[in-house]
Amino acid sequence: MDLPDPLQKMVDSLTRLPSLGPRTAERLALFLVNDLSGVRQSLGKALVGLDKVKTCEECFNLTTDNICVVCKDQEREGRSLCVVEKVTDLLAIEKTGQYKGRYFVLGGVIDPLNGLGPEELRVPRLLEKIKKDKVREVLLAVNPTIEGEATVIYLKKEVEKVLEGKVKMSRLGRGIPTGGDLAFADMSTLLRSLENREEI
Amino acid sequence: MDLPDPLQKMVDSLTRLPSLGPRTAERLALFLVNDLSGVRQSLGKALVGLDKVKTCEECFNLTTDNICVVCKDQEREGRSLCVVEKVTDLLAIEKTGQYKGRYFVLGGVIDPLNGLGPEELRVPRLLEKIKKDKVREVLLAVNPTIEGEATVIYLKKEVEKVLEGKVKMSRLGRGIPTGGDLAFADMSTLLRSLENREEI
Repeated sequence: MDLPDPLQKMVDSLTRLPSLGPRTAERLALFLVNDLSGVRQSLGKALVGLDKVKTCEECFNLTTDNICVVCKDQEREGRSLCVVEKVTDLLAIEKTGQYKGRYFVLGGVIDPLNGLGPEELRVPRLLEKIKKDKVREVLLAVNPTIEGEATVIYLKKEVEKVLEGKVKMSRLGRGIPTGGDLAFADMSTLLRSLENREEI
Repeated sequence: MDLPDPLQKMVDSLTRLPSLGPRTAERLALFLVNDLSGVRQSLGKALVGLDKVKTCEECFNLTTDNICVVCKDQEREGRSLCVVEKVTDLLAIEKTGQYKGRYFVLGGVIDPLNGLGPEELRVPRLLEKIKKDKVREVLLAVNPTIEGEATVIYLKKEVEKVLEGKVKMSRLGRGIPTGGDLAFADMSTLLRSLENREEI
């Protein structure tokens, strides 16, 4: 027996979401069809609502206005800029509650093999913003991958060209993650954690 | 920073789906907001389409008509009835392609502690159908739990009352699952697999 057509369409749609396999999709679709608690309606409304979300004109964070809440917030240190790859990284840093500056969402890292050069990555917009906002501190919070490292090196050079040494640049500290296990740490992480020894 | 309101609503809706935690929900919501390939539209349409799905008047399988494809299919052996707890179980049996009779979806198993008695479980409808369709073979394919076992015993008694011995009743074979490991099998499964030894 094939699934009834509307149910099959639901399964197909759900399978297109990342990390949902056909079995989970089938289970979710059957849950939705039997749903009496209004999840279906709430999901439908939420889907329509997503049309209101756009990217901030200043930093490319997600927002419902032209400017996001972080860029609007006058309490934030406007001269400090944290560069992240994507919005989820921004959200992760926001959850720590420790960073009080503004952000810039780069849209990825330099990855020539996948056709991602500086132009695709809003690098010109970043340099413009740094100049315009008179940024004096840049935290390059890209992910610690090979492409991320290359991006850090590239951005450092570009930013310094624009600001000629008037800017403090940093990246996130590297080492053993909290709750990690030395025995399972890779060589590079362990080396970094030795270099970055903290006094106690 | 809080998520933009429409995005937060999407996360909240997704979290109400079974087995989706807040992190997965956030990831899916961000995927949907950035989506350029039309998943959002397809999901929205699929949600609306689900309204067309109802339960079969004969067997309580899911269908878009009054009668489901299995009950409509004249090639199917109408005198053979497979009783399952829920639609997903029916789908699992259909996938084997081995069963050629009809189904009846019970809606659960007898579970007095959770207020599920024979009336809640469409047992009267099942007995009616068995009589009306002159069913001669009943396969009780409920899950092998304690409640499932109790349901099998109860149904056997009830069906025999109605048909007075004119019906062949069976349940699914029990034993070691394919790909299973003797060392990890529970005592009850192992005992059943010894009782149900197959000649080779």
